[in-house]
Amino acid sequence: MSADVQDEQNLNTAIQQKIDNKTKPRGALGDLEALAAKLCRIQKTLNPRLTAPTVVVFAADHGLAKEAVSAYPREVSAQMAMNILAGGAGINVLSRQNGIEVFLVDAGIDWPGEHPDGLIDHWMGPGTDNCLAAEAMSKETVEACLQAGASVLDDVVNPDCTIIGFGELGIGNTSSASLLMSVLTDVPLADCVGPGTGLVGDGLAKKLEILSAVRAAHAQPKDAREALQMFGGFEIAQMAGAMLRAYETGRVLMIDGFVASSALLVARNIEPGIMNNAIFCHESGEPGHARMLAALGGRALLNLGMRLGEGSGCAVAYPIIKSAETFLANMASFDEAGVSTGDPEAAAEAEA
Amino acid sequence: MSADVQDEQNLNTAIQQKIDNKTKPRGALGDLEALAAKLCRIQKTLNPRLTAPTVVVFAADHGLAKEAVSAYPREVSAQMAMNILAGGAGINVLSRQNGIEVFLVDAGIDWPGEHPDGLIDHWMGPGTDNCLAAEAMSKETVEACLQAGASVLDDVVNPDCTIIGFGELGIGNTSSASLLMSVLTDVPLADCVGPGTGLVGDGLAKKLEILSAVRAAHAQPKDAREALQMFGGFEIAQMAGAMLRAYETGRVLMIDGFVASSALLVARNIEPGIMNNAIFCHESGEPGHARMLAALGGRALLNLGMRLGEGSGCAVAYPIIKSAETFLANMASFDEAGVSTGDPEAAAEAEA
Repeated sequence: MSADVQDEQNLNTAIQQKIDNKTKPRGALGDLEALAAKLCRIQKTLNPRLTAPTVVVFAADHGLAKEAVSAYPREVSAQMAMNILAGGAGINVLSRQNGIEVFLVDAGIDWPGEHPDGLIDHWMGPGTDNCLAAEAMSKETVEACLQAGASVLDDVVNPDCTIIGFGELGIGNTSSASLLMSVLTDVPLADCVGPGTGLVGDGLAKKLEILSAVRAAHAQPKDAREALQMFGGFEIAQMAGAMLRAYETGRVLMIDGFVASSALLVARNIEPGIMNNAIFCHESGEPGHARMLAALGGRALLNLGMRLGEGSGCAVAYPIIKSAETFLANMASFDEAGVSTGDPEAAAEAEA
Repeated sequence: MSADVQDEQNLNTAIQQKIDNKTKPRGALGDLEALAAKLCRIQKTLNPRLTAPTVVVFAADHGLAKEAVSAYPREVSAQMAMNILAGGAGINVLSRQNGIEVFLVDAGIDWPGEHPDGLIDHWMGPGTDNCLAAEAMSKETVEACLQAGASVLDDVVNPDCTIIGFGELGIGNTSSASLLMSVLTDVPLADCVGPGTGLVGDGLAKKLEILSAVRAAHAQPKDAREALQMFGGFEIAQMAGAMLRAYETGRVLMIDGFVASSALLVARNIEPGIMNNAIFCHESGEPGHARMLAALGGRALLNLGMRLGEGSGCAVAYPIIKSAETFLANMASFDEAGVSTGDPEAAAEAEA
């Protein structure tokens, strides 16, 4: 047995001991106990600390949005980015509630006029190319996106940040996510496609028809990078790059819904170890997400039927992850509190 | 149509309008939207406010705990109460995390020596009588418990408190909760009984055997008060009284797990309207709770496999309820943000 494996086993034993010595029946804090153990393993300590929580939102447009794949017109990407900049979007108010810092990255919004100030500039162009007719982006742009996402971690995010969530906005991006999912998992395309921001009836059928045509227009990609090249988008590629750097720097990764999970699929394809640091925050109302979570082998903390994107599920779930840190750090142990430990046999004897 | 019904319909319309005008696709905040609407209806306003959040923990012993119905010895009730008083229990640390005030009520703990200071004194005796051999408490004590619970709201809880959770501790109290459930719902006793703090194998079978004997020793109670009289406990009866007063005073009620839900069953039997103010926080790991929630017609916000009691599920879920208040109060509307509203037909036209 290698020294590393031995160290890991010793840490796991010590973690379980610390959790079981808290004044509660064994396992009585359920998923909070598993979360606490995960935080310990990520930070390689019995005293994990969540500091400077952060959500980075990546925004970009999609050439495919010129087809009828969304309930919203394409200009909404730029409008919603301005809404986030102004502090009025869902991710802003939910993050403020929970003490989370928010950054917004311009990965490639199709601005109607001049680019506004205040976004982190990683603009790759006015949206991807329409992947029905061409590749969404070049091979070089895929690499540039992965690099850009990583650099947000290096240059922008607070170095004290130990937990980071990833959000996105971009009209049309559930289409890219569905296409990525269909080529990076075994799930048929029809089960990867959903209403996104709110398509119904014929609109949804039309979306599947278009995405099937997109899929047919491309070969099977040889890896996740090539899949990004085919289907986009800029924001998903940059998110994947940011996730990878967050993993490399030992941070806890909060994974939001359908689109963010597609970025994790990409990142996992590049670096499987990333799953050790990922916490699924919320199972999206977007129907493909349950299948995506199954493909990723994960279960989300929350299932509130949300489907807003922006990292909103991370903002809402963060206090629960904090609760895991909190009980482990602050609850009294049986010894400290002078409480008898539970033991079914002892209880049976107490009856006599 | 009565003026009240008209007012209610107008309020509901206005609530939905306010929610739908927020900068998000319709319904995209999922259960947070339903929660926000509920807060509005409880407070009869479009601007609900959650203030001075509070959890009251009711603690008592059970005569039935002298039988082998728990994995823990009976003295653990007093020890855990001291742990809460010292601030080291799960409910303390999770409440501190989320800015929740905690009170501990002595509804009838079997103290080994003198009663300690610091608890709210509604002591009804050193635990209920053993309901295998007698009634758990007298008819008069049931009324005294309901009154005592109500008086905690009147005399102790911050008058500014608009949202309150209810916790409990008491070795043996899942037994009382199971018995109450079996007589106040259509669920067979076997489906109401679970491991509690951690019985396994023979221990669990023995618990069901004992509870079946208890059930057989009593007639069918004519109402919830008589059920409390038969099966106890002091803490469940006081919790029900507190819930009823919280409802009468227009507060939001956070309902924790299995035992707290049994108190709500009692309270609903007395005042069905209470369900309008109740939010189920967490579906307990105790297997009967799913059936109990179904009987109460509710769905819990969280399902984290916790089974600690103490109101811990309320403390963990509170930030989510706060998120509902937050988005409704603070998110920009489409008009404010200058964002186009989504419309599938408009999107289809945009394609042309």
